Amino acid sequence: MNSFGRIFRVHIFGESHGESVGIVIDGCPAGLSLSEEDLLPDLERRKGGKQKGTTPRQEADYPFFKSGVFNGKTTGAPITILFENNNTRSGDYEKQRSFPRPGHADMVAHQKYGGNEDYRGGGHFSARLTTGLVAAGAIAKKLMPGVNIAAAVTEIGGETDLEKGLQKAIDAKDSIGGLVECRVNGLPVGLGEPFFDSVESQLAHIAFAIPAVKGVEFGSGFAAAKMFGTQHNDAIENMEGKTRSNHAGGVVGGISNGNELVYRIAIKPTASTPKEQSSLNWETGQVENFSVKGRHDLCVALRAPVILEAATAVALVDLYLLEQHSKRVVSS
Amino acid sequence: MNSFGRIFRVHIFGESHGESVGIVIDGCPAGLSLSEEDLLPDLERRKGGKQKGTTPRQEADYPFFKSGVFNGKTTGAPITILFENNNTRSGDYEKQRSFPRPGHADMVAHQKYGGNEDYRGGGHFSARLTTGLVAAGAIAKKLMPGVNIAAAVTEIGGETDLEKGLQKAIDAKDSIGGLVECRVNGLPVGLGEPFFDSVESQLAHIAFAIPAVKGVEFGSGFAAAKMFGTQHNDAIENMEGKTRSNHAGGVVGGISNGNELVYRIAIKPTASTPKEQSSLNWETGQVENFSVKGRHDLCVALRAPVILEAATAVALVDLYLLEQHSKRVVSS
Amino acid sequence: MNSFGRIFRVHIFGESHGESVGIVIDGCPAGLSLSEEDLLPDLERRKGGKQKGTTPRQEADYPFFKSGVFNGKTTGAPITILFENNNTRSGDYEKQRSFPRPGHADMVAHQKYGGNEDYRGGGHFSARLTTGLVAAGAIAKKLMPGVNIAAAVTEIGGETDLEKGLQKAIDAKDSIGGLVECRVNGLPVGLGEPFFDSVESQLAHIAFAIPAVKGVEFGSGFAAAKMFGTQHNDAIENMEGKTRSNHAGGVVGGISNGNELVYRIAIKPTASTPKEQSSLNWETGQVENFSVKGRHDLCVALRAPVILEAATAVALVDLYLLEQHSKRVVSS
Amino acid sequence: MNSFGRIFRVHIFGESHGESVGIVIDGCPAGLSLSEEDLLPDLERRKGGKQKGTTPRQEADYPFFKSGVFNGKTTGAPITILFENNNTRSGDYEKQRSFPRPGHADMVAHQKYGGNEDYRGGGHFSARLTTGLVAAGAIAKKLMPGVNIAAAVTEIGGETDLEKGLQKAIDAKDSIGGLVECRVNGLPVGLGEPFFDSVESQLAHIAFAIPAVKGVEFGSGFAAAKMFGTQHNDAIENMEGKTRSNHAGGVVGGISNGNELVYRIAIKPTASTPKEQSSLNWETGQVENFSVKGRHDLCVALRAPVILEAATAVALVDLYLLEQHSKRVVSS
Repeated sequence: MNSFGRIFRVHIFGESHGESVGIVIDGCPAGLSLSEEDLLPDLERRKGGKQKGTTPRQEADYPFFKSGVFNGKTTGAPITILFENNNTRSGDYEKQRSFPRPGHADMVAHQKYGGNEDYRGGGHFSARLTTGLVAAGAIAKKLMPGVNIAAAVTEIGGETDLEKGLQKAIDAKDSIGGLVECRVNGLPVGLGEPFFDSVESQLAHIAFAIPAVKGVEFGSGFAAAKMFGTQHNDAIENMEGKTRSNHAGGVVGGISNGNELVYRIAIKPTASTPKEQSSLNWETGQVENFSVKGRHDLCVALRAPVILEAATAVALVDLYLLEQHSKRVVSS
Repeated sequence: MNSFGRIFRVHIFGESHGESVGIVIDGCPAGLSLSEEDLLPDLERRKGGKQKGTTPRQEADYPFFKSGVFNGKTTGAPITILFENNNTRSGDYEKQRSFPRPGHADMVAHQKYGGNEDYRGGGHFSARLTTGLVAAGAIAKKLMPGVNIAAAVTEIGGETDLEKGLQKAIDAKDSIGGLVECRVNGLPVGLGEPFFDSVESQLAHIAFAIPAVKGVEFGSGFAAAKMFGTQHNDAIENMEGKTRSNHAGGVVGGISNGNELVYRIAIKPTASTPKEQSSLNWETGQVENFSVKGRHDLCVALRAPVILEAATAVALVDLYLLEQHSKRVVSS
Repeated sequence: MNSFGRIFRVHIFGESHGESVGIVIDGCPAGLSLSEEDLLPDLERRKGGKQKGTTPRQEADYPFFKSGVFNGKTTGAPITILFENNNTRSGDYEKQRSFPRPGHADMVAHQKYGGNEDYRGGGHFSARLTTGLVAAGAIAKKLMPGVNIAAAVTEIGGETDLEKGLQKAIDAKDSIGGLVECRVNGLPVGLGEPFFDSVESQLAHIAFAIPAVKGVEFGSGFAAAKMFGTQHNDAIENMEGKTRSNHAGGVVGGISNGNELVYRIAIKPTASTPKEQSSLNWETGQVENFSVKGRHDLCVALRAPVILEAATAVALVDLYLLEQHSKRVVSS
Repeated sequence: MNSFGRIFRVHIFGESHGESVGIVIDGCPAGLSLSEEDLLPDLERRKGGKQKGTTPRQEADYPFFKSGVFNGKTTGAPITILFENNNTRSGDYEKQRSFPRPGHADMVAHQKYGGNEDYRGGGHFSARLTTGLVAAGAIAKKLMPGVNIAAAVTEIGGETDLEKGLQKAIDAKDSIGGLVECRVNGLPVGLGEPFFDSVESQLAHIAFAIPAVKGVEFGSGFAAAKMFGTQHNDAIENMEGKTRSNHAGGVVGGISNGNELVYRIAIKPTASTPKEQSSLNWETGQVENFSVKGRHDLCVALRAPVILEAATAVALVDLYLLEQHSKRVVSS
């Protein structure tokens, strides 16, 4: 399903080179002040072409509210946000249709949908779909006023000096991968459920929905596999659950523990590299050399922070609204 | 919710030291041959005490079918499987109730449930709950006869020589973390959905439901963040989508691509280490030294493979049943 | 799916003549006082054999808590309640297996599940499954202390003098239908959602899950189809939304309006009538005369009130918990 | 939630006098031929102003595909359909804002959403939202080629001569209620699930989502409450499950039995009657006389058949796709 969430529930739709992309948000409480302008800063951060290493494709990315907002406030009814696709150059894709691009969904989409998929620019699989997610994230952030969510690129091509990492790619005329870390402060204790709806399960679920993500780790993450218990355990220091260290990354037993939530995602190099590749030609049935046309990011990790923040906000606000309710019932 | 899946849907329940643990499985097709014996091999693999480094707690772990099976076959109605808890020693936990154990859910459970949680042996947060999951996994495996799912520990405490890694823990009188890898062969092309219900999203969701998991990565995983595009891209070699390399780990655009599915999880060291720790004493409000009582695994990663296989099977069979239906419709 | 609800979520399972019937309740808030005894009064009301016209089958119907309750309170973890089947006489059913009973699920179950269904006593289709629902209903009622839910039989065989209606059936040696009305007082304003999750949609959904229900109507119900607008409209009399009349039955636009909720269900005569019938014999392929064996209710409507109350409580508590949360957010 | 369905899943949105109304359809199989023109006949049937007794408000109701359709076929990605609102006269509603209209959602919407609701023309509660449902219904019908769904008004104001019933309303200068019956032929045996997801539960759920519906009954419906078992039971006549009579209305034990599916809904008189009413004035806090402004249907039942067909198609196609999948698994 193209849906996520139980209380605050989003449904995304659209294609890269179709009419539009967008999102429907169900379960946003009524009475939240909301205008298109509230969404622009995060949408601006998501755009390509703003920095070295990102796609030159420029879209206005203006969020048109089609429902759910009245007199500058949310009404409690579903909010529909539409983004028009204007700056499409589908011709680029028609030309190389015979090569299902390695690392892209072209081949699986063709097999799964029996050839009916909209293949232009990746169609429904395009990272352009994250525009709607970023809009939903901006709304989710507004619903959690005391919670601060901030993501940043921490490595490009294995370099923590990001400029240096990017230069490696430019020099190699190749695309490159990167790491993005997300930190959340001010999150209440008690979000998430044991087992299937743990905070990690929810965040990993939505993080892996972001194109190009290959790994997700919380707190100490993969390093934990090399550690001893006494090294890893975070000693509890007070009755609020403050811990001395934070190897847990703010989640224990699937539940937020009131410490900083910390998690990281690994992003693979953009599949559409400018370098020549050899792969199957559908028409000839032979493996041949070809170059990917179209406008692409050299390092998609650079555009990922605001998308990861949005994904995080969307997942957390759902648990947040859910827990608010439960807490009250318990205490009544 | 304590539920997972859309078509093949599991609901787990139970507490470590309560009456029982178990699972309800909804959506299992009718007519599958099924007896308790079918579940015993995987349940046996999950048990502690079978190998060095695992808990001496011994439970019969016999799966009682309470519904859904008739004359040795599934009926199409929900299957309920109950495991009795017999070998409980709750006294161990009562004694140290004043210390919310670091790395355990004691503290967050107390805060989330207002002190009403069953705290004995971790209660509902206990890894004992995975018994039900392993049973469901064994059924899920039977529903996908051509699909082979196999997980194994690949590292303990950073050592690929597992004996050596375990010895480090025994020498240090401490618990230790590890890596587990799962490989799936024979999976059809086309499972999963773009975005929210990608194969990675579903598998990571359920993998992070397994206690002690701190990271999940597919194919090249975190190493992808250091790679160039031409290194990472898997060249397609034939019309079935067979690729030369498999950095993708068998999933592209969220969809299975017919190559081997490969993913890994990082497991933290058991929180209940035999070594003395210092942490908050609820009664005194002070940070004090204490030792965790109870029977525990030195390295939980050792018991994780069959659990990861089960989680994998449960997530995949849901996508498998879903896709079977879609494919047929497309082709009709 | 055998599940109902979003926040307070129930999963039923079991077969009439299998091991057991039961229910898993997910999302029940922690801290609610709960013992098996709390469930007995409603379970007692559901039992057959207590009054003229109901089945002589006697089951202890004792609710065994298998999870989710600790020290006399709910823990916040899933509550599993199991009822054992002891008083089964499956032999009755084996004898007449060749006749798929008219008005029963025998035929469709056979077709849907390919002959793998547990056919004894209706199997999973049996009204015995409502035992779990009644238990869940008793818990749901406890969660809404100010809300009063009361259902009663209002007609048997078209007679409002119930004794008279039942006598008609006894005289005719035939089973007979009836009407049951449910009234809910103390329900807050604002439960339910516009369109798909209206109060009527939710209540009708669960009411039609009760075996033998053929119709559901709210307030004026089918009589509304004969009325003029000025007759039907309920004039609003004060700022709390109190209306002069109550043709709406307490729901407007899908939302509870603070007036008494009133709805009715039509229950068909028990399909298992003691009278001889003619229907298909599977073995001969011919239509033949036969009599239904087994122990049955002459008028199932007599046992329906407590089941309808439970269904109502389960559906309303879900909307109630959901709305509590939304309200708080709006007001914050 | 503003969603319905498990496999074929619809999400509606919009407001009567806002930017637009529309629907997102998730889970529609790829490869179905689809153009806007396919939807026009049913949308035309839904329109007001086409016949005596319906609203003079005229909207173009042209369905704009915003996603999910490419080269005249569905792609397997979510289908978004948008309808613009052009012919709005919100001034009518501003004038009488002080009177929460009896029988309308004005009062409950105000209470539920804390005054943030879009009140113009009923906002999100408007029957105009059914435009999206009718579009989805037209698509659902196309997915079940052998299934015929036909609904018709069978009574107006208690008269089976519909002209006569409508004249009663015109003479009385009042709105009036009616009955609508839906018949489905060609439905396969085995759709639906026992208990919560019975065919009746699903159809009643979505039927009660249609504004103004007060009752739903299947087959014999409320008349069943007056009948004997031998009268009501439908004798089975052959191995396919064909029955002599059809009191069941095509559903037994919650499962379709291969006979004609028959059900009826009761529709109350339009709340917005032209006649003067007395009700609360919010501003004065007094009960006063007033007349409803705006353009309304005298008898909304007249526009209901195509909406009921659409609701029926949307609910059935979901069970249909679900069952196709199950069947195949059973038989493999």
